[in-house]
Amino acid sequence: MQKLWGGRFAEKTACLLEYFNSSLSFDKELYQEDIQGSMIHAEMLAKQGIITQKEYEDIIKGLAQIKQEIEDGAFSFDISLEDIHMAIETRLIALIGDSGKKLHTARSRNDQVALDFRIYVLKNNILIKKLLLDVAKTMLDIAQEHTETLMPGMTHLQHAQPINLAYHLVAYICMFKRDIQRLNDDYKRNNYCPLGSAALAGSPHNIDRHFVAEKLGFIAPSINAMDSVSDRDFVLDFHYSLSMIALHISRLAEELILWNSSEFSFITINDSHATGSSIMPQKKNPDIAELLRGKSGRVFGNLVALLVVMKGLPLAYNKDTQEDKEGLIDSIAHINMALKILKSLLLNITFNKDNMLQMCKKGHLSATDLADFFVSALQIPFREAHHITGTIVAYAEKNHRDITELNLEDLCKICPQIPQQFLQKALKVLDLKHSMNSRQSFGGTSTKTTQEQINILKQWLKEEESCHL
Amino acid sequence: MQKLWGGRFAEKTACLLEYFNSSLSFDKELYQEDIQGSMIHAEMLAKQGIITQKEYEDIIKGLAQIKQEIEDGAFSFDISLEDIHMAIETRLIALIGDSGKKLHTARSRNDQVALDFRIYVLKNNILIKKLLLDVAKTMLDIAQEHTETLMPGMTHLQHAQPINLAYHLVAYICMFKRDIQRLNDDYKRNNYCPLGSAALAGSPHNIDRHFVAEKLGFIAPSINAMDSVSDRDFVLDFHYSLSMIALHISRLAEELILWNSSEFSFITINDSHATGSSIMPQKKNPDIAELLRGKSGRVFGNLVALLVVMKGLPLAYNKDTQEDKEGLIDSIAHINMALKILKSLLLNITFNKDNMLQMCKKGHLSATDLADFFVSALQIPFREAHHITGTIVAYAEKNHRDITELNLEDLCKICPQIPQQFLQKALKVLDLKHSMNSRQSFGGTSTKTTQEQINILKQWLKEEESCHL
Amino acid sequence: MQKLWGGRFAEKTACLLEYFNSSLSFDKELYQEDIQGSMIHAEMLAKQGIITQKEYEDIIKGLAQIKQEIEDGAFSFDISLEDIHMAIETRLIALIGDSGKKLHTARSRNDQVALDFRIYVLKNNILIKKLLLDVAKTMLDIAQEHTETLMPGMTHLQHAQPINLAYHLVAYICMFKRDIQRLNDDYKRNNYCPLGSAALAGSPHNIDRHFVAEKLGFIAPSINAMDSVSDRDFVLDFHYSLSMIALHISRLAEELILWNSSEFSFITINDSHATGSSIMPQKKNPDIAELLRGKSGRVFGNLVALLVVMKGLPLAYNKDTQEDKEGLIDSIAHINMALKILKSLLLNITFNKDNMLQMCKKGHLSATDLADFFVSALQIPFREAHHITGTIVAYAEKNHRDITELNLEDLCKICPQIPQQFLQKALKVLDLKHSMNSRQSFGGTSTKTTQEQINILKQWLKEEESCHL
Amino acid sequence: MQKLWGGRFAEKTACLLEYFNSSLSFDKELYQEDIQGSMIHAEMLAKQGIITQKEYEDIIKGLAQIKQEIEDGAFSFDISLEDIHMAIETRLIALIGDSGKKLHTARSRNDQVALDFRIYVLKNNILIKKLLLDVAKTMLDIAQEHTETLMPGMTHLQHAQPINLAYHLVAYICMFKRDIQRLNDDYKRNNYCPLGSAALAGSPHNIDRHFVAEKLGFIAPSINAMDSVSDRDFVLDFHYSLSMIALHISRLAEELILWNSSEFSFITINDSHATGSSIMPQKKNPDIAELLRGKSGRVFGNLVALLVVMKGLPLAYNKDTQEDKEGLIDSIAHINMALKILKSLLLNITFNKDNMLQMCKKGHLSATDLADFFVSALQIPFREAHHITGTIVAYAEKNHRDITELNLEDLCKICPQIPQQFLQKALKVLDLKHSMNSRQSFGGTSTKTTQEQINILKQWLKEEESCHL
Repeated sequence: MQKLWGGRFAEKTACLLEYFNSSLSFDKELYQEDIQGSMIHAEMLAKQGIITQKEYEDIIKGLAQIKQEIEDGAFSFDISLEDIHMAIETRLIALIGDSGKKLHTARSRNDQVALDFRIYVLKNNILIKKLLLDVAKTMLDIAQEHTETLMPGMTHLQHAQPINLAYHLVAYICMFKRDIQRLNDDYKRNNYCPLGSAALAGSPHNIDRHFVAEKLGFIAPSINAMDSVSDRDFVLDFHYSLSMIALHISRLAEELILWNSSEFSFITINDSHATGSSIMPQKKNPDIAELLRGKSGRVFGNLVALLVVMKGLPLAYNKDTQEDKEGLIDSIAHINMALKILKSLLLNITFNKDNMLQMCKKGHLSATDLADFFVSALQIPFREAHHITGTIVAYAEKNHRDITELNLEDLCKICPQIPQQFLQKALKVLDLKHSMNSRQSFGGTSTKTTQEQINILKQWLKEEESCHL
Repeated sequence: MQKLWGGRFAEKTACLLEYFNSSLSFDKELYQEDIQGSMIHAEMLAKQGIITQKEYEDIIKGLAQIKQEIEDGAFSFDISLEDIHMAIETRLIALIGDSGKKLHTARSRNDQVALDFRIYVLKNNILIKKLLLDVAKTMLDIAQEHTETLMPGMTHLQHAQPINLAYHLVAYICMFKRDIQRLNDDYKRNNYCPLGSAALAGSPHNIDRHFVAEKLGFIAPSINAMDSVSDRDFVLDFHYSLSMIALHISRLAEELILWNSSEFSFITINDSHATGSSIMPQKKNPDIAELLRGKSGRVFGNLVALLVVMKGLPLAYNKDTQEDKEGLIDSIAHINMALKILKSLLLNITFNKDNMLQMCKKGHLSATDLADFFVSALQIPFREAHHITGTIVAYAEKNHRDITELNLEDLCKICPQIPQQFLQKALKVLDLKHSMNSRQSFGGTSTKTTQEQINILKQWLKEEESCHL
Repeated sequence: MQKLWGGRFAEKTACLLEYFNSSLSFDKELYQEDIQGSMIHAEMLAKQGIITQKEYEDIIKGLAQIKQEIEDGAFSFDISLEDIHMAIETRLIALIGDSGKKLHTARSRNDQVALDFRIYVLKNNILIKKLLLDVAKTMLDIAQEHTETLMPGMTHLQHAQPINLAYHLVAYICMFKRDIQRLNDDYKRNNYCPLGSAALAGSPHNIDRHFVAEKLGFIAPSINAMDSVSDRDFVLDFHYSLSMIALHISRLAEELILWNSSEFSFITINDSHATGSSIMPQKKNPDIAELLRGKSGRVFGNLVALLVVMKGLPLAYNKDTQEDKEGLIDSIAHINMALKILKSLLLNITFNKDNMLQMCKKGHLSATDLADFFVSALQIPFREAHHITGTIVAYAEKNHRDITELNLEDLCKICPQIPQQFLQKALKVLDLKHSMNSRQSFGGTSTKTTQEQINILKQWLKEEESCHL
Repeated sequence: MQKLWGGRFAEKTACLLEYFNSSLSFDKELYQEDIQGSMIHAEMLAKQGIITQKEYEDIIKGLAQIKQEIEDGAFSFDISLEDIHMAIETRLIALIGDSGKKLHTARSRNDQVALDFRIYVLKNNILIKKLLLDVAKTMLDIAQEHTETLMPGMTHLQHAQPINLAYHLVAYICMFKRDIQRLNDDYKRNNYCPLGSAALAGSPHNIDRHFVAEKLGFIAPSINAMDSVSDRDFVLDFHYSLSMIALHISRLAEELILWNSSEFSFITINDSHATGSSIMPQKKNPDIAELLRGKSGRVFGNLVALLVVMKGLPLAYNKDTQEDKEGLIDSIAHINMALKILKSLLLNITFNKDNMLQMCKKGHLSATDLADFFVSALQIPFREAHHITGTIVAYAEKNHRDITELNLEDLCKICPQIPQQFLQKALKVLDLKHSMNSRQSFGGTSTKTTQEQINILKQWLKEEESCHL
């Protein structure tokens, strides 16, 4: 196969080199975007009188056929053609002859690369956003069922205060909400069309970049061609946003793994979503959650990879940037799959309410309530109330009891300085549900304020789903 | 020093442990934010009747005095106090007694940490943005002087097409423009107030989080307290945005280093901004640009560090997140300095126009023009024109000449198939300034379109500078 | 302060620039190494007749005094002096005059930097190794106490098979053993002396690099000066080895955090090594273990940072490499501290044997034993035995029992196809201690083979401690 | 397809889940290692009387056939089989029936995974080492031709001192030498056999792990089974070593790109190893070198990915570690290719000696020589000589000349304080070759010492090539 730029080259490029240089094995993923971009480019060329109407029609027909060939598996990807752009153009020329050669007028591979991958990234931005909305919706539905399901709220993996399960899930929905906002921001910031940048300096032809930009759904053409052909911010931004999604998933996955252990037993994963052991017949492993946690590695790694590639590159295009694709395609594929799997996993979990409730009785969960009670009842500073409560907890622990299991006699013994009538009231404060529902500040865990949060998020979901970006 | 939470602890914490646990050595950087947050918290407590007006006034007075003490260097930072929050509160109690103990009502250190660092990050977001605007403004001023200064535009570090220097600089301004937009997006996405989240579940006190949020300049209080105390997205977002700034700086720095080499000699750095060698008296090293390039390492590394810390952490607060501060403080300090230094460096560079122009005569820079000319003159497809031009370039190279140095005779010999009249016109097309100015598409390098880009960016700068975020 | 290389510079370096360029704030950490290197360099210069004996003695005396001044806090670090090398040399000249100026003969700051930091890294390699040996020894002592302490061995955080605690700890000692081997390998691979490389090309003076190398404890002088002044492999190698240590610590810390939860309750951390909450009086948080886990972030990040800095740097020295120090100094400090803290933490943990044993009765831990028994008793393939056991486990689970709680009647009902005499024997196989001790293959968990492992490791420890590197 | 561990699972695993869980798409790369391990495992089982000779023979025959089927492309990889281990075992049972089921006696998939990947890593360690030796040999051959080829030695990308090209190349060979040593160290440190670890606790069967280890070429069996099934140090070590190779390649690639620019013109890349532009006919791009530089991104990224995956994982096996393979396979493939390509590229470069020499006359390369001359001639301290030379350089620069172009009159004017006879001698010192050859210290750039370095490296190469690891 003769290379399109082969004019000045005397020697034949060796085989391994060809493979090393070629991006075809992965950028064929972009065939749709390439053909879409070429069609609009041709339309503009015709509109501007740079090619004839006949040439334009030939090109459209040829490109449509090539698209079909690729989708039918009938297209032969020849690695010596370097990339998807060359592969399609070469086939186009074979199909329609000289008209095909005119398609490349007023553009360069550099801006084709820039255009195709940008469209690809923006498309996937929307796709990932939709999957995130799906997960958020699923979690909201689950949360709606559990605004009264008590569980131990933890910090430092230590029992802290009683909360409800819905409230815990809402925390993750808030993370995904930020992830979606971040995707929206990325989209708007990068939604500018590079086509027409040519090699690095723009084109001498009378092209209409505003027309192309609008037709392709961009806000406007990019400002400076040199920047446009070397800019990979849109790729990095997406890498980062995917990393944040992976991070939040890894945290949720960690909790599911913990909750699924014999020690916690907060959840049971349906057989369909767990796996067994080849040697231990009794095992029921949370493989899915472990993989969800582990995916963070590759996604962070892919982000680092591109940061390293781009570091210190002079303007404009450098071949190093060809390394921008495989990592992102990989991250997209795995986050795409992870979000679908996560949704499915969440729908295949049974929450063991009894175990959760039982666990609330370990760790003196209502200790803070006691301290707060002393503050208002005894009119003492919090620090002092905190200290008194600490003494009570120490007593309970020494006697292997939870503070909810202490009686009036105990309290009198520990705090002889406090009038008995107050200690009697203090006992009531220790009730777990009372404790959970007492936290009614905005954003707090009471059933009422949790419901308020769910409502806010439902409203937000509705708005996000209705917007067309 | 007795710890505020020391009630239930029998043994004394050993010294090294104390140091290991303590964040005071770096979070004292946040003293302003801590005091600011405490003042508003106290104001809200008073408004809600949770503390008395007298207590409120004591607190404000005490905090103001502490601020003064810190700024006067009179404050004693005792490492056994763990963190800046404890240090200030302990001092407050020492100063004003029981009123001071009331300040901590209805809040936890977890949300203090969350609040203080968020304010700090948002403040620095604006600060960095201002420095970026400064650099952009400086570059625009320089660009304005050089819309006709010819230089070789490169891809693959190979001469490609003649461009002007302003156009090259504008490419970097476009990068910084995206950086600023990214900072703006971060700001809005994270501008929610966590205070009132308490430990993880909200507060049982009748607090007013909306009041606090508004007083502190936030859009609104955060939705879910559990998320709020464990959320470090706002830190990671800033890490990433700083990484992108560092990346863009590293690219510009690389070019300055290249341009400063004997081989390029495109620029001369003023003595004030270069350094010498201890052993080679003739050296004039671009140390500053090298450091600017190298700063990308630590900034990327700090981003990775926090991603790793947060990976797989269950809800809510875990002590690991204490590791969120030093890295960001470091990245902020270095990007802050880098932007000031970059501006200063740019103002201390002399562009050697003659050398740049001379270099344009190497590398057949107007070859594309020739190809384009053949397309329109001979009505042939670009691919064919490209091939003919390739043959001409090969001829010139073989004869150690630039194509601008070929004459009619040469062209006739190389392309006997092309009528002489066209070859005569072809010679004119090879002029460098003609070539540069021919690229008039939107975003192109011609002086006219470069000026258009400068105007767009000046307008944008004006808008950014006038907006209050 | 006039700069030593200031001869050709007309303008004064501005203040911020000075700070930006200066490495003094962190490389003063290397003062010992710098003085040590200078003393040997001077000794060599005297031996070779390049300086006089008198000059040599002046230099030694001056350097000794400077060392004293620094250690007494009497040395004034002037930032305008750029780095520790300049600071010391300038002071030396002030102290001893012209003799001081001769010290820099036949060397450059580049190879001083290379030398000082290499000595520093090698010193700390040994220091960290000693701390690792200490931790390993501590863990071996603890393990020795627990070769019969039953606990659930887990995969996927699911109960798998009964093991003993010593065996679990030995797994970590094996990791630290590899870490120590890696440090040993690093040491040998990088133990070559760069001094005498001068700027990049070696020295025209009649120096004796072999003498210097030997005197400073290196294997030999480095082979190529250009490589030597730009080589930072020794730094990266140490970064990586510290990262692996941090990784292993993060895994152990994760387990301690899990074991310390109410749900696991496998361990109790002494009060001296836990912390409390400012709002929840009952909390006893494993802050130390969390920080140990979190330190992995910064150590990995510092590794990434230097990889990024070094990527794509041409030969020889570039100022970017000045960024090599702060990250490593930070990683060393934190791993140093982490290892001391880890040892202390391990010594302040009480293992709750009863809880561990109790937990062994959850999860059908002896299921594999049952399968293995069927294999040998019934002469059936493992896969078939695995399947039968799976059915038994499913039955137990359905009836909310552990398989150890099944009786003969149950087994007969589940496996009517198996003769009763075998089922009777099968019941005995289910005993937990029997199960643990049955795994006697080399490296297995039986008390006997665990003791064997401990003995191997004790022997190794003895050898490591006795070797002088 | 029924799963081998499916006994207790009621519901069917859904399709996407199957794909998500399965590692078959990438671990089929390990089929050879899996079969090799299974054969030796079977041999040991027979030797120990755990299976019969007949069963052993069936297994060997079956495995041999499966290997053939895979290599003939006749093996059907069914994704529902999860991984290569299951795929092969399932096929074995289909081929030989019950004997096949016995193969899995006394082992678990966890240690199969651990074994197979370890063999794979060690094999590739040797392969990469061989390729590195090849590159080193090629560079040594080139270096041997250029011990007198003058070129400007640079620091800060500024001309510093004249060196020879061989010397510059030797610097890179020294880096690759360390890379090889690092690979050797990795190999020895990780050459221990995990097989026989079973799930995590060893096997109750009377297996002989020492026999297996020896037969498979390991030093010995691993010490602790729990460590063995969760250890991925051997993977990380290789990741890191590949990262260092990638780093060194990126530096060399950067230089080739610089040298290939019009500005430097130090080298010409043969047409066979350069590529053209689709729009600029004259371009001859160093794509290969750019890709070589860019490969560092993915290799560093893959290292980070696995560090992140492993961070904070409790013992023993967790499914997250399945993420250990794709990244390493990717890094190996690209470094493998990069080393072959690098060798080929080096053989297809022409060094433009004249241009290099010409460039030596820019930048006052012999300034240090002048300073050194003044030291010995005038008996003044280096610092003073440095200052005088600085003044001379400043004069030359002001007059747009190189110091080699100054005459006696100039010198007299600049340094009236120095006797003329010394200035006359000074002129001779400025000769470039004289300057290069004057640096005769061990490791220096003189032709003589460069040759000495080449000889050392040749000797080392011979030793490495003759060792069998």
